[in-house]
Order: sequence, then structure tokens, then C-alpha cells
Amino acid sequence: MVANDILIFNEIPKGKPVPGQTTVKKQEEFDLDQSLPDGAILVKTLALSLDPYMRGRMRDESIESYVPALKLHAPIENFAVVEVLRAGENAKFQKGQKLYGYSKFQNYSVIPKEQAESLRVLENKEGLPWTTWVGSAGMPGQTAWYGLKFIGKPQKGETVFVSGAMGPVGQVTIALAHAAGCKVIASAGSEEKIKYLREELKVECAFNYKTEDPNKVLADWNQKEGRPFSIYVDNVSGAQLTAALAHIARRGRIVAIGSVVDYHGEQHGIEGVFQVVAKELTWEGFLVLNRMTPELFEQFYAEVPPALASGKFARPKEHVTIGLDNGEAFAALFDSEASNFGKAVYSFE
Amino acid sequence: MVANDILIFNEIPKGKPVPGQTTVKKQEEFDLDQSLPDGAILVKTLALSLDPYMRGRMRDESIESYVPALKLHAPIENFAVVEVLRAGENAKFQKGQKLYGYSKFQNYSVIPKEQAESLRVLENKEGLPWTTWVGSAGMPGQTAWYGLKFIGKPQKGETVFVSGAMGPVGQVTIALAHAAGCKVIASAGSEEKIKYLREELKVECAFNYKTEDPNKVLADWNQKEGRPFSIYVDNVSGAQLTAALAHIARRGRIVAIGSVVDYHGEQHGIEGVFQVVAKELTWEGFLVLNRMTPELFEQFYAEVPPALASGKFARPKEHVTIGLDNGEAFAALFDSEASNFGKAVYSFE
Repeated sequence: MVANDILIFNEIPKGKPVPGQTTVKKQEEFDLDQSLPDGAILVKTLALSLDPYMRGRMRDESIESYVPALKLHAPIENFAVVEVLRAGENAKFQKGQKLYGYSKFQNYSVIPKEQAESLRVLENKEGLPWTTWVGSAGMPGQTAWYGLKFIGKPQKGETVFVSGAMGPVGQVTIALAHAAGCKVIASAGSEEKIKYLREELKVECAFNYKTEDPNKVLADWNQKEGRPFSIYVDNVSGAQLTAALAHIARRGRIVAIGSVVDYHGEQHGIEGVFQVVAKELTWEGFLVLNRMTPELFEQFYAEVPPALASGKFARPKEHVTIGLDNGEAFAALFDSEASNFGKAVYSFE
Repeated sequence: MVANDILIFNEIPKGKPVPGQTTVKKQEEFDLDQSLPDGAILVKTLALSLDPYMRGRMRDESIESYVPALKLHAPIENFAVVEVLRAGENAKFQKGQKLYGYSKFQNYSVIPKEQAESLRVLENKEGLPWTTWVGSAGMPGQTAWYGLKFIGKPQKGETVFVSGAMGPVGQVTIALAHAAGCKVIASAGSEEKIKYLREELKVECAFNYKTEDPNKVLADWNQKEGRPFSIYVDNVSGAQLTAALAHIARRGRIVAIGSVVDYHGEQHGIEGVFQVVAKELTWEGFLVLNRMTPELFEQFYAEVPPALASGKFARPKEHVTIGLDNGEAFAALFDSEASNFGKAVYSFE
């Protein structure tokens, strides 16, 4: 018997999630020697991903949305890396293997056959931390990769504007844009993040959207550069999206990733959408899991993890919480003042 | 010598154009026997197109935009059908030929060599009225055709929602959508237009956006049909665009054509753009003249004029003004209460 921490979805939040109310940690006993149902495996969690889209799952189950609701009073679920402790009767797995995919927010889990077989075995020849496999080498990295490659379509010499740039999608977007020979304008919400963007991620232009007018920053960049930026990777919507529409180049591409504000159910009118016509823009959203075919997964894993390991891409900034808390790490995703920043993860190593 | 009516761009409008102020008709003498510069041709105007985008050209020349400014105190210009009265020294043309392209708003014109050679000879084997060659078989028809075909990508059984449906782009969109096996939801701003849409253009659902809530109409349609509409051809922006974002299907396509409101410089915030992500929408604008390659022109002329002539596409509704006025016909484009409706043209036949 071992102690098993579990993070429970306890209450539907109004607005921002509240640790200890929206989410509550409880502890149960877990029998490592329990008998396993046919094909099920028993795993230990190594890393769990915390992502803003999870807020959208914390709703009444009767409300339809683009992602299923989380089950109230049940464990939170999201992308994870787990280690096989017992493969049971399932010949596809072996003890010691590391697997990537959906799992419960608990130290130990029994994963039923069908779900287990949807997980991907990580060889990790690159030697990346397990947390990175749920971040830059996981779903957020795939989001940045798919969006920039297939919607942004960067050409050498273009400039890419990315908002929410210190988030996990933003960081990989910056690395991919630089690798494609593009310059980067990056925005974030604190001076520490701006410093990191400038000094560690080497962006050509970084600005704090809370203290600087994005319209002025973008207009100045376009003026200085002699040509306007042509790709906007939008992680935030709102005023930065309005500014991007006003200043993006003709035939520009808007990669719609997310909107921190809208996750809380607020509505922000976007002005100037006539620019979609006047500048012949393409504006496209996507849910990465609906787009990643087996071939694209292979291509992603062949490109991105090696680039992260070799240092070709800047080492991702992660905000690691050791072991489960009451949801403080999740709530911090919605607090742009949080002094810790980077991809939010729980680690159990 | 003949009398030549000329419509002059007289004054930059604030808001809607005012006949007799924004535009003024004057009359000059025109020498039909004048000597022609090298390669120039002398033509008589048969049809002139009046389009909302022309409002955007009525600005101070120092303001950059997606279409060049019209020259103040000079004749208005737009798409036209003209007849060659004298081909002069230009061996590419013959007396009696009908030509399509840009021309001045006057009864008679001398067209310089280079501009003349940019005009397309219309054979009109289909026997369409010349006015139709600047409407359903002209730029507005090409806009509908390109937008629906390459951005909307209609599949049999889908529903297409088109706003500004009695405009020239809307009418051709309806015909093309029906030809593709789609149903059509169409909106317009008067009961007469709604009647025409239902009875003549046979749309499956028509509504007056001034008296009906587009959100309710679209939600009811989706409910009744058992699947949501999946293409929105947007001629108006504003509240109908917001409603379309809320009710369009996943993987929907928004074909951005125009925004009557924005032509006057007003700003309307669009809510719910997060749906671009949540529903994985594609939203794309285009300027048809930048997209129509010679191959696409051939394809368009092979498809659309014969379908109009054969009755496969509903006969387009045109609002014909005989001879030039002081700009009343242009101003009426921006008056949704106007009792005459359909593609606005001047005819000189």
C-alpha cells in the first residue's frame, strides 16, 4: 500500500479557478499489488501538464463545447508522462516504459486496456526531462508546430508576432520562427518575462502589453523594418488581436490558438475585421488533436525533440511544481502577475 | 460633335455619399472625329457598374488603402462595357466590338493604348444584356464564384448562409450554392427583398435582419435541419457576423467579402472570435482582381454566363438607371430602404 495524492475537480468555477475550492487534493491508499482487469496497466505518474484550455472543461456537463467537460468530483485529467510499474497481462507494454498521453492527476493509476493502448511509448533518446514531453515536446509544442507550419507558413525574412509569448506555445513558436529565418515580435505581461524573451529567447522585439500600446509597438516595428510583420500567432485575443489586424501585412496569416480572456466567458469585441477583406488575410483556428495524423506526429517527433536537445531551440522555460497541490499551479496560469512563469507542470521525479 | 455626360468625383464624402455634392454630372462636347493618339481607341459606353467598394476610393489621396483613391474633380471610374466606335491605328480592335474592363463614367471616351489592351473582348454568344456583364457575369459574379469555390468549398447537403443576399455577389452566391447541392439561408433589409429571395431565388430560408434576430433564425435553422450551416458568405459584417460565428458548424468557412458599415469608416466590434479556435474555422478575405489568373477567368466565363443564359442560374435582378445621374444611383447602394434593388448599373442602350 502507498499513499496516492489525487487532484479532484470539486466545484465549477465562476471566473478564475480558486485553489482548494475549484480543485481539492485528497489522499487515498493505493494497492500496488492489486489485481488488474484484462489488459489494464498500473503506472506511476512522472509529469502532468497544466494548460489554460482546462478551464473550459470545468463547466456543467450539459453545456456543449469544443472539449468535453471534466467530470465533477472525479480526478482532473490531462496530458501526462507515466511509467509502467506493472504491465499485467498486456503484452504491448513492459515494466519501466515511459508513456505519453491522457492520464489522471494522481501519483498512481490503473489505466484500462483501451486507454493504455492509446498512449505513446517515449524512447527519449534525446534525454529531455520528462516534463518537457508534456510541454515543448508535447501538445503545446505540437500546437505551435502545426499552427506555424500549416497556417502561418513562414518565409525567410518575414516577421512573426506572437502574443502570450512566454507560454509553452509561444516559446516553441519563437524557436520555430527563428529556425525558419524569421524575426520575432513577442509580447507578455511582466518585465521579468520581457527580460527572459530578450535575453534567453533572443527575440528581436519584446513588449509588455500592460504598459505599452501594441498599436504603437507594431507600427514602429513595421516602420523600422521597412515591411510589416506578416504572421500573428494569437494566444490571447482582445486588444492585441485588434492591433494585429490593423498592422499586419497584406496576405497576412492569423494563427488562432487561444484567448485567455474568453476562457472565463467574457466577451471582447474585435474591431477592424474588415481588414480580413482589405488585406486578404487568412485567419484560421484548429484543435491540434484533430489535426495531427500519425504521419504528422512522426514528423513532429523527428524535428522538435532533437532540436530541443541539441540547443538549436532555446531550452524551454518550465514552471515546475513538485507533486500535486490544491490547484495553486493551475490557478497561476490565469495570473499574469505570477512571478514564476513558463510551461506549468507537475513533476513527480 | 456630340454631348458627353460625365460623372465627376466632386467632394470627399463624410459618411454616406450625397448626390450632387459627392458626385456631380457635367456635360461637355465630344468630337467623335478627333485624332486619336497612337494605339488609342474611341468608345461609347454601354453599361457601367456601381459597387459599394467605390465608397472606399472616395478619400483623400494621401490615405493608403486596399484600392487606389479616386482622383478628385476627375471622372469616376469603374467596370464597364464599351463599344468600339473607332479602333484608330490599333490593329487589335475593330469597330463594333464590345469590351469589358475599367472605364470612365461618361458617354464617350478615348481610351489610351495600354488601358485599351487591358480590356477583354466580349463575344456574348450567350446573348446576355450588357449590364449583366458588369454584374453577375462581371466582377461581382467573379467575387461570388471565387469566394464560394475556393474558400467556401461547398459540399452537397451543406447549408450556405449569405448576408446582403440581394446584392450582386449575394445573388450569384445563391445560384452557385444551389448548383452545388446546398441549401441557402439569405438575409436582406426589406420585405420586398425577402419576397424576391423566397419567390424568385428560391432560397430555403430568408430573413429580414432589421426585424428578425439573426441568432434566432440561425439557431432555428440548425435545429430544424439537424446540422448547422457550415459556410458564411459575409457581405455585411456587424451583428450578422457575430451571429454567424456563434452558430456556424465546426470546421466552418467564412468567406469575407465586404462590410457595408465599415465602408463609412465606422467600427463594429465582433464578439465571439474565439469560435475560430473552438470550431476550427477558416476565415479568409480576398480581392478578386488579385486572385483571378487568366486560367480562372476562362473557367469563370465558361461556367457562369452560360448558366445565366440557360436559366440554370436565376436571372439576376438588376436596378438599371438609364444614362448618368448626379450620383443618386450610387447613393442608393447605401440605403437599404431603397425600393429598387438588385445589381446597380447605368445602361446607355
